[in-house]
Amino acid sequence: MALITEKHLRAMIVKKVLPNPFLLAPDDKLTPAAKDFLRERSIEVTRTESKDQVTAKPGIGENIPVGVSNRHIHLSEKDVEMLFGFNHSLTPLKPLSQPGQFAAAETVTLVGPKGALHNVRVLGPARSLTQVEISRTDGFLLGVHPPVRLSGTIEGTPGIAIVGPKGCLTIEEGVIVARNHVHMSPEDAKRFQVNHGDRLIVQTMTDRTSIFPEVIVRIDERFKLDLHIDHDEANASCLKTGDCVEVIGKNGELFSPFLGGK
Amino acid sequence: MALITEKHLRAMIVKKVLPNPFLLAPDDKLTPAAKDFLRERSIEVTRTESKDQVTAKPGIGENIPVGVSNRHIHLSEKDVEMLFGFNHSLTPLKPLSQPGQFAAAETVTLVGPKGALHNVRVLGPARSLTQVEISRTDGFLLGVHPPVRLSGTIEGTPGIAIVGPKGCLTIEEGVIVARNHVHMSPEDAKRFQVNHGDRLIVQTMTDRTSIFPEVIVRIDERFKLDLHIDHDEANASCLKTGDCVEVIGKNGELFSPFLGGK
Repeated sequence: MALITEKHLRAMIVKKVLPNPFLLAPDDKLTPAAKDFLRERSIEVTRTESKDQVTAKPGIGENIPVGVSNRHIHLSEKDVEMLFGFNHSLTPLKPLSQPGQFAAAETVTLVGPKGALHNVRVLGPARSLTQVEISRTDGFLLGVHPPVRLSGTIEGTPGIAIVGPKGCLTIEEGVIVARNHVHMSPEDAKRFQVNHGDRLIVQTMTDRTSIFPEVIVRIDERFKLDLHIDHDEANASCLKTGDCVEVIGKNGELFSPFLGGK
Repeated sequence: MALITEKHLRAMIVKKVLPNPFLLAPDDKLTPAAKDFLRERSIEVTRTESKDQVTAKPGIGENIPVGVSNRHIHLSEKDVEMLFGFNHSLTPLKPLSQPGQFAAAETVTLVGPKGALHNVRVLGPARSLTQVEISRTDGFLLGVHPPVRLSGTIEGTPGIAIVGPKGCLTIEEGVIVARNHVHMSPEDAKRFQVNHGDRLIVQTMTDRTSIFPEVIVRIDERFKLDLHIDHDEANASCLKTGDCVEVIGKNGELFSPFLGGK
């Protein structure tokens, strides 16, 4: 069941995909404002049996808030002790958008063959694997050129030296450039009609219009709706944390061939 | 007149926009390999009178080479003398992709309220206006946050201090983040069927698929085909100088709603 709002219809007009008659699936519903919107434009509403003919594709006009990730490190418990001392546990400083996750008071220095990055924030709680997430810009400074990966998939990635106040260590692998992805709850997934692993196509609404056509969907009960991009992606598209992007398609198919940009 | 190649047809198959029959405009031509390609797939070729019905939209499967611009400065003759001494003229070091343009041996230091950038390359020859082009990442380091602009449109942009070996100066305006754009000759423009000021939609073919939906077309007899992006855009999309992007639409309209990605 999809609930079609006036905002949804306005987005369809911008994209030139609002036909007459408007075909509605048997279990779809229009809000009262959406009904008025169509009536004022003399657009007829017709119920259809076939899902394929339905006018209102899921997600059109839906927005997703953006969270820009700065370089950071996740540490295993063993590596927390190695860098910060025996029996040390991470000190929560600020909660992150995803429930239970926090920016820790602790920071480390990353040292690559070409340079070092100081004050790199540790994110908690401790994980099973130590993983470093940097931007490609950071990589040029460090002299480390990691591939674009989803969190947790570190096989074959480069390593780096990590220096803390009580010790240092070298990881053999674990440095990645994070692949952009969207966190969502099962309820959000229902609304967007997507499954875990699907790819959303999103467009920015900024001075530097960009489209991210391969945003991986990650669904979990604990997740809050949030698109995670890094600083390079944020700067290339003039996005900052709290901005929204618009969903314009999924799995390689756009809802409309019209981008409706400026 | 459009010449339709086999590569063109292969791109259309990937995008699922190769119909049967294949409609050809009266003055369009198929290469011998393209004719074989269609015959092998039992696709009929039909001539049509109406341009609108033509199957092969211009630009599908066409690639544009990328040039990544590092931060740089264009100087007026007066400012060249101010920074490098009386009667100084710029020393060509390396020709740029656009004929007549060169990277000069000279560099300057940019000084903003938060930091400085050393060894910023001067591009020659001298222009009528001094203009600084930096990335948004550079802007955070300098503490200067310029808008995204096409070269030459500096009204209302921030200024900066510029230091050379023989003197320094402060410009009141002239710092921009360059808007991505493509240089092309009138012949290229004919092939892409675009006019000066049109907006191309291009897609990267990298590990970090991105779409730039608003690439401004700049046409000049002297121009060589080249898409200019900055380091933020390059890093956000894993592009480097010499890579190619694919044209997938123009002026807000995609050739197909299928992106044909991985």
